[in-house]
Amino acid sequence: MLLKVKPLHLLAGRPIAILHEETAHYLNLHAGERIRIKSYGKRKEIVAPIDITGGRTILSHDEIALSQEITKELHLKSKGIVDITPALRPLSLSYIHKKLDNHKLTFTEIYSIISDIVNNELTEAEVAFFVASTYLNGMDLEETAAMTQAMVKTGHQLKLNKQMIIDKHGIGGIEGNRTTPIVVSLIAAAIDQLKLNAAMPKTSSRAITSAAGTADVIETVARVEFSMPELQGIINKTNACLVWGGSLGLAPADDKIIQVERILALDPEAQLIASILSKKLSVGATHVLIDISYGKDAKVKDRGEAEKLKDKFEKIAAKLGLNIKVVLTDGSQPIGNGIGPLLEMRDVFLVLKQEQNKPLDLEQRSVFLATEILSFVLNMKREEAETIIRGILLSGQAFKKFEQIIEAQHGSLGFLDKIKLGRFRYDFKANRHGTIAEISNRKMSHIARMAGSPADKGAGIFLYKHVGQQVKKNEKLFTIFAETRDKLNYAIRLSQRTWPVLVK
Amino acid sequence: MLLKVKPLHLLAGRPIAILHEETAHYLNLHAGERIRIKSYGKRKEIVAPIDITGGRTILSHDEIALSQEITKELHLKSKGIVDITPALRPLSLSYIHKKLDNHKLTFTEIYSIISDIVNNELTEAEVAFFVASTYLNGMDLEETAAMTQAMVKTGHQLKLNKQMIIDKHGIGGIEGNRTTPIVVSLIAAAIDQLKLNAAMPKTSSRAITSAAGTADVIETVARVEFSMPELQGIINKTNACLVWGGSLGLAPADDKIIQVERILALDPEAQLIASILSKKLSVGATHVLIDISYGKDAKVKDRGEAEKLKDKFEKIAAKLGLNIKVVLTDGSQPIGNGIGPLLEMRDVFLVLKQEQNKPLDLEQRSVFLATEILSFVLNMKREEAETIIRGILLSGQAFKKFEQIIEAQHGSLGFLDKIKLGRFRYDFKANRHGTIAEISNRKMSHIARMAGSPADKGAGIFLYKHVGQQVKKNEKLFTIFAETRDKLNYAIRLSQRTWPVLVK
Repeated sequence: MLLKVKPLHLLAGRPIAILHEETAHYLNLHAGERIRIKSYGKRKEIVAPIDITGGRTILSHDEIALSQEITKELHLKSKGIVDITPALRPLSLSYIHKKLDNHKLTFTEIYSIISDIVNNELTEAEVAFFVASTYLNGMDLEETAAMTQAMVKTGHQLKLNKQMIIDKHGIGGIEGNRTTPIVVSLIAAAIDQLKLNAAMPKTSSRAITSAAGTADVIETVARVEFSMPELQGIINKTNACLVWGGSLGLAPADDKIIQVERILALDPEAQLIASILSKKLSVGATHVLIDISYGKDAKVKDRGEAEKLKDKFEKIAAKLGLNIKVVLTDGSQPIGNGIGPLLEMRDVFLVLKQEQNKPLDLEQRSVFLATEILSFVLNMKREEAETIIRGILLSGQAFKKFEQIIEAQHGSLGFLDKIKLGRFRYDFKANRHGTIAEISNRKMSHIARMAGSPADKGAGIFLYKHVGQQVKKNEKLFTIFAETRDKLNYAIRLSQRTWPVLVK
Repeated sequence: MLLKVKPLHLLAGRPIAILHEETAHYLNLHAGERIRIKSYGKRKEIVAPIDITGGRTILSHDEIALSQEITKELHLKSKGIVDITPALRPLSLSYIHKKLDNHKLTFTEIYSIISDIVNNELTEAEVAFFVASTYLNGMDLEETAAMTQAMVKTGHQLKLNKQMIIDKHGIGGIEGNRTTPIVVSLIAAAIDQLKLNAAMPKTSSRAITSAAGTADVIETVARVEFSMPELQGIINKTNACLVWGGSLGLAPADDKIIQVERILALDPEAQLIASILSKKLSVGATHVLIDISYGKDAKVKDRGEAEKLKDKFEKIAAKLGLNIKVVLTDGSQPIGNGIGPLLEMRDVFLVLKQEQNKPLDLEQRSVFLATEILSFVLNMKREEAETIIRGILLSGQAFKKFEQIIEAQHGSLGFLDKIKLGRFRYDFKANRHGTIAEISNRKMSHIARMAGSPADKGAGIFLYKHVGQQVKKNEKLFTIFAETRDKLNYAIRLSQRTWPVLVK
């Protein structure tokens, strides 16, 4: 059926077409069903779901409105003519139905779902059915491995001419746990020192529920968004990078699935594993260290759960031919002193620069993780690996490597002086003598976000004490930093209501 | 935060706001999250999910685009200023999560979900999670009754000053099974004859997957869309009506849920029961007959399944204080000769007019259902009720009542002559001598729809034979009617591929 395109400048974030109800009725189409659209006389076509307008409408029955995702794709002029036909339901819908009925899916079926997600052939509601089906019925090891591969194949992949590609991932919910910039600097410096044919191309996320993600922290001193060729340049120079993964198109299905999971804050385990491993495979990783931090307030609640997750990671990685090492670490309290982009950058800087007031817990954890990676990758004794890593840190090689990466990413550590911590501050003090019994990651993250983190770079929390340390009455427990008086007040009120630090 | 409204004439079928990515980043908002919007200086506000536009965008960071659902609701001028704040997640989302985790919901929790669905507070993806959770975890009798009540309370209700409100509903998937107009005419005539303080305000649906719904069929001779006061006028005149339920706002949650179920062609049993009973309660029904037709191709596949469904209907109706009678009928083959709006109207007419060539199976089934209703409502012996019903049919009272209803609905049976059956026709003939072994409802519905039904009123199928009857080779099995040559050809090809009539 030929229809005139009505220029409505519709920007929907996804392909969508609007039909007049008479047209829809004539074609037996209901809202949400799909049509195939092509520019009249051309070959290229696109499939899109329809909205229907009725009553006093802005379309007449021989017109159609298209979102800009479609007009761009079809190179349509504002007053073009399109030819539409009802489209078949995507086959992947029947596979989603199959999973909802608790049947196992094949690789081809999973690939079909993932590829339709990436190509916008499925609506958000359809993806929700997929997420619900895997949340309720789970996925076995083979299905999870298949989903991981499908997610890699439907995205961009980084190609590096290296024998070993090293990567790490932390599963946390642990505030201030900014080991990544330190570990990457240590390992990249070790690669140089030991003349390894290797690289550590680290891509990170921005904060989702935490006060800051690694990308937010690095962004205080350098750029983190690059094209694929730019990224290759940075890695060629430094054997490493510290960039945001979001703009690279690695395993893009993952982002779309996570967007739907976020609606109900769901996090199906199969999806978690596929999400992490697909990003690693997309950068060509050969060796991956997974750091699972467990604790009451962390994503993984206790050691038993952590062990089970470790086991699944190992089994699925084996199916994918990926060398993996999983370590379990304490996730009971925040790490370091700073929580928030600039405050965490400061902690990283103090450790790498080996300053007197460096946060010891952050240093120790970073050395531990780098040691694990080196001994795992080179099949080396742990003591030997630790000696190398400590040497690199003490000699300033790690700091130099970090500076080199930051400069390759068009940044400078000089920025650190210019960006100021939030000028509105509040000291939260102990109301009694005693010992710190508990510091809640979850509450700290809420307070830091209330204070403006991560959007306000200088907002966040500085923690003076850790669990087990003594405090006197009226001694400072933490300071809140904010960019505005209002945000500071929100954060103060939340602190007073939730008491994130427990003194006993 | 104050933003300028950019006039994009966005018509999305639901409230939606588009923010610039900088604004979203500043407010820590992700696509799909919600904001509260009010016109600057006014009090009325509306909650809407957001889309985010990035890169080369058509919005600047101090602007917002709003769908017309919002601008209308807020009476916004095209260049107004709005005040937005991040909105809390609707509480109902946590109840949906609870159901997804297989916990029982209370009435209040179910009411909250249903009311948020009706008020557009939940997105389609969120409703999909609700549908998936009830599909996978089911709902018990109390939950189903609660959902039914919530659906009634969140919609319009018909108020009639009658002692008894009689209703019926057929669960089918049986083509040509147009008993409703006949049964309503019989019962309404019986109400007159017996001077009962009663009415039968029948609301029906349009076709969803079948070739025609009762509303499509009645629409060939009368109007079916009325406002609530108009409807009351029709019922006051005739003690009955035969209208489309869709425009009355009865249990509107149901339509929105069904729209999402249709994505995967899901039909959770709890939803089916709540859907039917809520429509009945919304018209104030006191006595309801449910006709479950079962058969291989029907919605209910066999007698066992039908018995179970009957049991659930009876138990839930008891919880709702509704008098209900459930009958099980044969759904193995189409009923009557016509399939398609005008062809089915013709069958109804022939039975009511008591013409020689009336379809006997349709008459018999209609008399059976009307008899069941009368004996159930008046607690009368079945034989006695049947005598009354047959008397009404034979005497022409039923036909007069039908004419009266059609006229009250601004129609006339004179239209029947004017509207012609599709002028493109094809006779499908038997390829051998034998007995009709099977006629597939599902295949017949597909063929009739291909031929243009229900949008083309005169399109459809005329069936010459029923199961058990003899045919000779080359004798006509059915004729396809279509309005265009193309549609006829589609329907012919589908017939030849699927063989809807099996001769043995």
